Amino acid sequence: MELYFLGTGAGMPSKERNVTSVMLNLLAERNVYWMFDCGEGTQHQVLRAPVKIGKLEKLFITHLHGDHIYGLPGLLTSRSYQGGDTPFTIYGPKGIKAFVDTALQVSDAHLTYELTVHEFSEPDAHILFEDDQFQIRIAPLVHRVDSYGYRIVEKPQAGKLDTVKLKQLGIESGPIYGKIKRGEPVKLADGTELSAEQFIGPSYAERVITILGDTQPCDNVLLLANNAEVLVHEATFAEQRKELAVKYYHSTAMDAARAAKEAGAKALILTHISSRYQGEQAEQLVAEAKQIHMETYLAHDHYRYEIPGRRRQT
Amino acid sequence: MELYFLGTGAGMPSKERNVTSVMLNLLAERNVYWMFDCGEGTQHQVLRAPVKIGKLEKLFITHLHGDHIYGLPGLLTSRSYQGGDTPFTIYGPKGIKAFVDTALQVSDAHLTYELTVHEFSEPDAHILFEDDQFQIRIAPLVHRVDSYGYRIVEKPQAGKLDTVKLKQLGIESGPIYGKIKRGEPVKLADGTELSAEQFIGPSYAERVITILGDTQPCDNVLLLANNAEVLVHEATFAEQRKELAVKYYHSTAMDAARAAKEAGAKALILTHISSRYQGEQAEQLVAEAKQIHMETYLAHDHYRYEIPGRRRQT
Repeated sequence: MELYFLGTGAGMPSKERNVTSVMLNLLAERNVYWMFDCGEGTQHQVLRAPVKIGKLEKLFITHLHGDHIYGLPGLLTSRSYQGGDTPFTIYGPKGIKAFVDTALQVSDAHLTYELTVHEFSEPDAHILFEDDQFQIRIAPLVHRVDSYGYRIVEKPQAGKLDTVKLKQLGIESGPIYGKIKRGEPVKLADGTELSAEQFIGPSYAERVITILGDTQPCDNVLLLANNAEVLVHEATFAEQRKELAVKYYHSTAMDAARAAKEAGAKALILTHISSRYQGEQAEQLVAEAKQIHMETYLAHDHYRYEIPGRRRQT
Repeated sequence: MELYFLGTGAGMPSKERNVTSVMLNLLAERNVYWMFDCGEGTQHQVLRAPVKIGKLEKLFITHLHGDHIYGLPGLLTSRSYQGGDTPFTIYGPKGIKAFVDTALQVSDAHLTYELTVHEFSEPDAHILFEDDQFQIRIAPLVHRVDSYGYRIVEKPQAGKLDTVKLKQLGIESGPIYGKIKRGEPVKLADGTELSAEQFIGPSYAERVITILGDTQPCDNVLLLANNAEVLVHEATFAEQRKELAVKYYHSTAMDAARAAKEAGAKALILTHISSRYQGEQAEQLVAEAKQIHMETYLAHDHYRYEIPGRRRQT
């Protein structure tokens, strides 16, 4: 599992940073990518990334500002051009469907794959998607327009029954397997006593990745980032420009760090950096944040962050 | 007057060529730029070009395929971000307004300047715009969707009356000035005869630039490109792929050359090159075209073509 930052700037593209998009590499987990936001030029960034657009399964939009969605029509049509034929789902705030539909219709685009657009406008935190592997919860943040954060939970994995080992002992599938799965001790016909632990592999804790839309500090950031393995948080401004952050409903790097610390998030990645912080100047953002939350990283375009493997459950 | 190619590829961006956009530099003539088409990432190309987005006065769309329009919302909002405050007009086929309006509305964009969208859907060639300096005519081409070509005519300039010279001879403003302007000989009170030519500066012929949308060869190409100083023509395929050009309603490089020759266009610039022609391979397009029309150039991203100065009229 890896995060790959395609665009890390705010508002409009600069020579250094494209507008926002980040990919979650789930090749190991489900042989797909998920994308979060899609500013203009995201498909151009993909051309220079080790990423296949055809393997994009889902796209999650945090909010409808142009620097987060204007790359969407081109991404969709290029996925078609490249022969993408697997279903693709977009999740986003109400309005995203009108944008996508109008763009595709006006330009007479005919996609080669099934496209589903799932809009939401619920004011409360809720589960957006769930299957055997993942659960995704969203919650509204505080920005000039409706903006949401995503809490991506890879579900805990129970220990697997070691059937090979059981069969070596001559124990075939049957009621005994059920007992062992439930963790109960087993007594065989010949009097041998077996403890369940011998035949159950390790179990893993859940793993949480939190990716937020633009926001001022607010309680839902803490809810979404609680105990996250990694929190991707906007840091449009340095603390010195706190008044601009307040005015435009954004966060400073220190705001992000305070949230990460309070939520108990392990790693914090700063992104959505204002173009006023060019080159070395952006380092001050991470330096500031580290005063509060040591494990902080500054994203740049094509920055990769490998998410630590799942932790064994005790 | 100069053409500046921002994107010269077809269909989708590649590492080498962005999707279509070309600027007409009119700084000397009216201190503005005009843009023709605006594929995704056009504003990114502008970042690397000696062009100011705030000086964009007009944008002309040839047709509504995504590779010609998806960069429009970002261009409009970035022009705002950069404090553009002069009026801006978009001309394009019916549908462009719905695209622009939906994108701006959904993303809650508030422009800092007056935006006018002028849609057309007339089936016949007609004058789209005219002022003292320029006249722009359009005509429909033949493509999978409605596609148009633009004939930009810088109007001929009549010779200017040399009033300084007249006043040196003691001739003040009055009926004599009118006679000279009309080219009539003048006899002064003292019997001196003056020929009008002495007091009229050089006159200049019109200058024509033709920029076409995607098209198969058709009569309107000849109409639009008649005696043009420069013809910007798509050349999606080489002649070897003529069957693909026919199938997808495109032109080959030779088609473009045949049109240039027949229309009496001076320079021909090939653009909208399929990504199958990478690097050196694209040279075959211009080589082919030159067999028919010698003065042919192959556009690449950031290619500049200086348009020769206006010709003196005899």
